[in-house]
Amino acid sequence: MDNHVIAIDAMGGDNAPVEIIKGAVESLSACPVKILLIGKEDILHQELGKYTYDKSRIEVVNATEVIETSETPTIAIKQKKDSSMVVGFALLKEDRAKAFISAGNTGALLTGATLKVGRIRGIARAALATLLPTKKGFSLLIDCGANVDCKPEYLAQFAMMGSVYMENVRGIKSPKVAIANIGVEEEKGNALVKEAHALLKTQDNINFVGNMEVRDIMSGEVDVIVCDGFVGNIILKSSEGVAKHVLNTIKSEVTSTIIRRIGAKLAKLKNIKKKFDHSEVGGVPFLGLKSLVVKAHGSAQAKDIVGAVNQAYQFIENDLIQKIEAKV
Amino acid sequence: MDNHVIAIDAMGGDNAPVEIIKGAVESLSACPVKILLIGKEDILHQELGKYTYDKSRIEVVNATEVIETSETPTIAIKQKKDSSMVVGFALLKEDRAKAFISAGNTGALLTGATLKVGRIRGIARAALATLLPTKKGFSLLIDCGANVDCKPEYLAQFAMMGSVYMENVRGIKSPKVAIANIGVEEEKGNALVKEAHALLKTQDNINFVGNMEVRDIMSGEVDVIVCDGFVGNIILKSSEGVAKHVLNTIKSEVTSTIIRRIGAKLAKLKNIKKKFDHSEVGGVPFLGLKSLVVKAHGSAQAKDIVGAVNQAYQFIENDLIQKIEAKV
Repeated sequence: MDNHVIAIDAMGGDNAPVEIIKGAVESLSACPVKILLIGKEDILHQELGKYTYDKSRIEVVNATEVIETSETPTIAIKQKKDSSMVVGFALLKEDRAKAFISAGNTGALLTGATLKVGRIRGIARAALATLLPTKKGFSLLIDCGANVDCKPEYLAQFAMMGSVYMENVRGIKSPKVAIANIGVEEEKGNALVKEAHALLKTQDNINFVGNMEVRDIMSGEVDVIVCDGFVGNIILKSSEGVAKHVLNTIKSEVTSTIIRRIGAKLAKLKNIKKKFDHSEVGGVPFLGLKSLVVKAHGSAQAKDIVGAVNQAYQFIENDLIQKIEAKV
Repeated sequence: MDNHVIAIDAMGGDNAPVEIIKGAVESLSACPVKILLIGKEDILHQELGKYTYDKSRIEVVNATEVIETSETPTIAIKQKKDSSMVVGFALLKEDRAKAFISAGNTGALLTGATLKVGRIRGIARAALATLLPTKKGFSLLIDCGANVDCKPEYLAQFAMMGSVYMENVRGIKSPKVAIANIGVEEEKGNALVKEAHALLKTQDNINFVGNMEVRDIMSGEVDVIVCDGFVGNIILKSSEGVAKHVLNTIKSEVTSTIIRRIGAKLAKLKNIKKKFDHSEVGGVPFLGLKSLVVKAHGSAQAKDIVGAVNQAYQFIENDLIQKIEAKV
């Protein structure tokens, strides 16, 4: 267990510190990890006092400052040296923790991680990898926003890192990799994806299956979907917008009359909404750094933190950093 | 009415020629146009024989060949000189028609239109403009796939053409224009959208409101959403995929038990699906050419053709080519 030390930013996110700390305590029964909980120690001790848990497995690390979501990432990282986030990076750097989870300011987390933790030797860019729910389980979309302007070589590395992740953390043998594109034919797409296609075809450390149309993501036929961070973020956000729009339209329609409301109740429409909630995942790993950094959702609750800890545990247990290093 | 001549490719699309011809006949009562119906004349006359209509308003133009959806666009356009599509372009070129509607091979339509019809002087690239259903009505997404690699200047012209379209065809005064982006702040996005932002800010022929997140498209707050054709197509297709996935999940859930099926019936869930069908729109205009070319959906039915004819009528009636020319 000594090797499985996970640092958690107790002060980041809308529901910090209450939900974050609750999640940290609950995760102890989910997997054999030790947790370094970072934040204002008096608040943390007070909150931890509400729970009964193995005290040897949660250690409080004091940090007197907090980076707010509204702050400019680069400035915040430079100036708030004693913030829970910057202290988290230091714990990784000093090898006191193998992974760091934060629900705080996304820009600051990405900037800070790149500056303070550093990339694996040979990796050109670290990338955000989101697990998307599909018909069959989950597919990994990489990059989801860390690199808005990419070169084909970056996409080739995203493909490799995504494959290592899906194989080891999600247990998928020889994960299928495709490029997110506007058509399946080899000649489709913009200059970037056309060049990336030529590159990925010759890459022997992945199982490349070609281009895929983004409307087919939900089928789950492909395990790793590669794109630049601008396009990846567009896919995530437009999916989010449409899903919300469809569900809201249905809600306002079925509540328009008493009969329809009764029907909606009988049809158990409320249960369906839960089908689109996937807190099991818990967070988005930032792959390509010397340690694992996981971005939890800004509105993360205890169960999301448990999911993120689980993910980090799998990552450490399976030596993913070494496996990525071996394939660079 | 002599000025309002619209050519229709009777042979393009999955439901050609039956649905296309039915749509052409029905559109006569929707707006004061004359239609040139292009295709194999014996088939067309036979099909038209089923209807009672003002014979002076539909003229059959013979074309002995058909470009299939599986054909390579450039080759098909070059070789099939007597195809319904190439004949359609010739009618525009000779000014015998002011608009051309086709549900055939998209690639061939875009390639052929650019080669045979030509762009308005000063327009660098023609663009596909899709009307997206929103909470408030429709917003225009431009470009949706014609130009996968763009320069900032192209986006500036898309913004202008989209504004002219929304103002004149959809009757929206001073349409709000935004760039599709991964954040609303001015410094957000990739190199292309950052440069485009700087350019659109100084452009006095549009009402530029800044960046918008694609998850907010459905709100309908913005009328014209500008992006490169790769990103636009990704937005369209991922929206389509997610909407389908959500509706299918709901369908399979609510039909899982008898009680739930009864509930679904009472809640009138089937009616809701219709809310996401927008054949009123009928087609996607290809803006920036010397004449209007409208791409109807490959699976277009009669009502879609009526929608496309209506759109083309508004376009001609409001002199959109001249209005775009005046703003270049």
